[in-house]
Amino acid sequence: MLSIDPTEMGYSLEVAVVGAGKTPFGAFADKDLRALAVEAGEKALADSKCGPDAIQAFYLGNFAGPEFTGQNHLAPYISTALGMPGIPSTRFEAACASGGSALFHAFQAVASGIYEAVMVLGVEKMTCQTTARVTEILSGAGDSRGEVHVGSTFPSLFGMIARRHMHDFGTTREHLSAVAVKNHENGALNPDAQMRKVITLEQAMKARPIADPLNLYDCSLISDGAAAVILCPADRARRFTDKPVSILGIAQASDYVALEQKADITTFPAVQLAARKAYAMAGLGPEEIQFAELHDCFTIAEIVAMEDLGFVRRGGGGFFTAEGGTRRDGAMPINASGGLKSKGHPVGATGIAQICDVVQQLRGQAGERQLKRNAVGLAQNLGGSGASCVVTILGQE
Amino acid sequence: MLSIDPTEMGYSLEVAVVGAGKTPFGAFADKDLRALAVEAGEKALADSKCGPDAIQAFYLGNFAGPEFTGQNHLAPYISTALGMPGIPSTRFEAACASGGSALFHAFQAVASGIYEAVMVLGVEKMTCQTTARVTEILSGAGDSRGEVHVGSTFPSLFGMIARRHMHDFGTTREHLSAVAVKNHENGALNPDAQMRKVITLEQAMKARPIADPLNLYDCSLISDGAAAVILCPADRARRFTDKPVSILGIAQASDYVALEQKADITTFPAVQLAARKAYAMAGLGPEEIQFAELHDCFTIAEIVAMEDLGFVRRGGGGFFTAEGGTRRDGAMPINASGGLKSKGHPVGATGIAQICDVVQQLRGQAGERQLKRNAVGLAQNLGGSGASCVVTILGQE
Repeated sequence: MLSIDPTEMGYSLEVAVVGAGKTPFGAFADKDLRALAVEAGEKALADSKCGPDAIQAFYLGNFAGPEFTGQNHLAPYISTALGMPGIPSTRFEAACASGGSALFHAFQAVASGIYEAVMVLGVEKMTCQTTARVTEILSGAGDSRGEVHVGSTFPSLFGMIARRHMHDFGTTREHLSAVAVKNHENGALNPDAQMRKVITLEQAMKARPIADPLNLYDCSLISDGAAAVILCPADRARRFTDKPVSILGIAQASDYVALEQKADITTFPAVQLAARKAYAMAGLGPEEIQFAELHDCFTIAEIVAMEDLGFVRRGGGGFFTAEGGTRRDGAMPINASGGLKSKGHPVGATGIAQICDVVQQLRGQAGERQLKRNAVGLAQNLGGSGASCVVTILGQE
Repeated sequence: MLSIDPTEMGYSLEVAVVGAGKTPFGAFADKDLRALAVEAGEKALADSKCGPDAIQAFYLGNFAGPEFTGQNHLAPYISTALGMPGIPSTRFEAACASGGSALFHAFQAVASGIYEAVMVLGVEKMTCQTTARVTEILSGAGDSRGEVHVGSTFPSLFGMIARRHMHDFGTTREHLSAVAVKNHENGALNPDAQMRKVITLEQAMKARPIADPLNLYDCSLISDGAAAVILCPADRARRFTDKPVSILGIAQASDYVALEQKADITTFPAVQLAARKAYAMAGLGPEEIQFAELHDCFTIAEIVAMEDLGFVRRGGGGFFTAEGGTRRDGAMPINASGGLKSKGHPVGATGIAQICDVVQQLRGQAGERQLKRNAVGLAQNLGGSGASCVVTILGQE
């Protein structure tokens, strides 16, 4: 893979992650959206030994806070509670890739020399609504005049993707469940995961149907949670931390929102495009990525992602998973955190939580989940059925 | 005013507006949110003689599309409909300053050399909801756990601001109405305005109360509409247009969301801070601004804004207005477009529509509303009761 000189992309500075913090993910009746966000933000500040007065801009990833909680205008609502009034405070929305999109824009500003330290924070508070209402709010990331209007929900959209993937490539029910079993096994070791529960292949295969062929264990969770990172130019990173992590490549891409507008529903062009750009910027190919946090909103999404990112050939994701290739001791460990499936999926927080999880691995701080090959990791954050994607490649300094 | 070298702010390039387009503002039962956005985007493309394939990133300002229309994930939903799949497409939310915030971030990317052409588009579709529900959705920009929880709406919050301004500075009922009369007079000449209706001072003063001391004519409108601009580095501007407009200064600032958290409710620190930065970047002071589009969500907001921007002394805004100082033939013409009061206020579109209106004046294309002193204009876009603000200074190239 030929490297693109980042200065050709307008980026004059290298950027480091110098602080990371997140809340546990789960259902927290006693914590509102702002309390969760403040908890994560304060942890990130403490992790970077950085005071709130050092932060020059605030980037918030949040998908549907106004609909879940009634509170809009969330960026200054949170930044002021963190003791940072005055600074530009903006909410970024790109469906489930809202966190990743906030990170992408924050990266661009720091890499351009505009700010010397910024906070990127993702948050979502979902469990205050019924499951039916959550499903309705999430369906706002699909096409309300088309697929959603005729009754589709995200489980049914990804159900169609799974069925087609099975038809085209021979992916099986066992393959899907192998994703769930592996992610639950990892999540059981993660003290911050929402569902710390090992499941058997048989359990995963026989769970109650949600949107055929997807069953309960193919679907990620409804969660409350927040995650935050602090970015600064790499040449200033040592002021904040002994263990800075470098952003080697990052890109955001988009595509049509409605599934029916895609030529082929078993691959997401936005993921491929974001990956191509991020790889080029990093000067790395998929074979040089040592581990990854992928957007497993549904088990089939993890399979499609590993194919679109080039970790396996088209159609090979299910087979590779069933063979154990994505386990912690496999050739390409995926979602050692437990993923959205087991760790939880507070939508706006997910893209930043993935970064926190990659940072933890790069720093060697992942405890029982620690991977041996931990020099270069990738995070892939997806919005909707592929209409938004952010891919980020991080490495040890 | 001492100029800050923009390169010290990390901005390596001058930025120009090379295309602008907007829909009429009003109630359009036959046009959904996306149709409005596409109409404005296509007008901006046509105005810049720029094809959709030249656009490298899409910045969407939208406050509450998901709540008004049920459709979220709006940025790729719109950019793909404009024929621009693939590019980073992101929605920016900062309450009623969402459009301005999208512009601010787009400016930063172009000024840093990241993109050679981007589209910034603001849109809101509001008239599909009842007035009661619109009021509820808009109140999401206040503090849902505090002021809104106890029953405040934005008219009542700005009513309190007006009452305090009257108490502290002797501002009168006539002063407030003078803002409305002037903005209606201007809007009556604007073919794209929602309410093209001249009103008398007596009519304005005797209208039915909304939130005392504010009456019907003190409040801006509930509107559908969209506006778009195309930005590029200034040295490429002539490829797109014969009449490029320069962004001389721009800044975004924030403050506490809840009115009760402000030390003084008759002045907005976020407006003062954004103005100070934008003035410093432009190397201009308020006395060098020749005309302005201010965020008159309520008549009192225009009065407070002209004070916070330094056009008049603290407390002098009402008197200056009553004396005719802000009329088209006054010393400082404000809202020659008709402002939010008469032109309409489709929330997410407003910040970009202000830019379109300033551009029109700078180009000498404002028809009957054309101002004679039209070399340097300012736009001020406010979110909530002052928790977000973007100030932009534009000039003839």
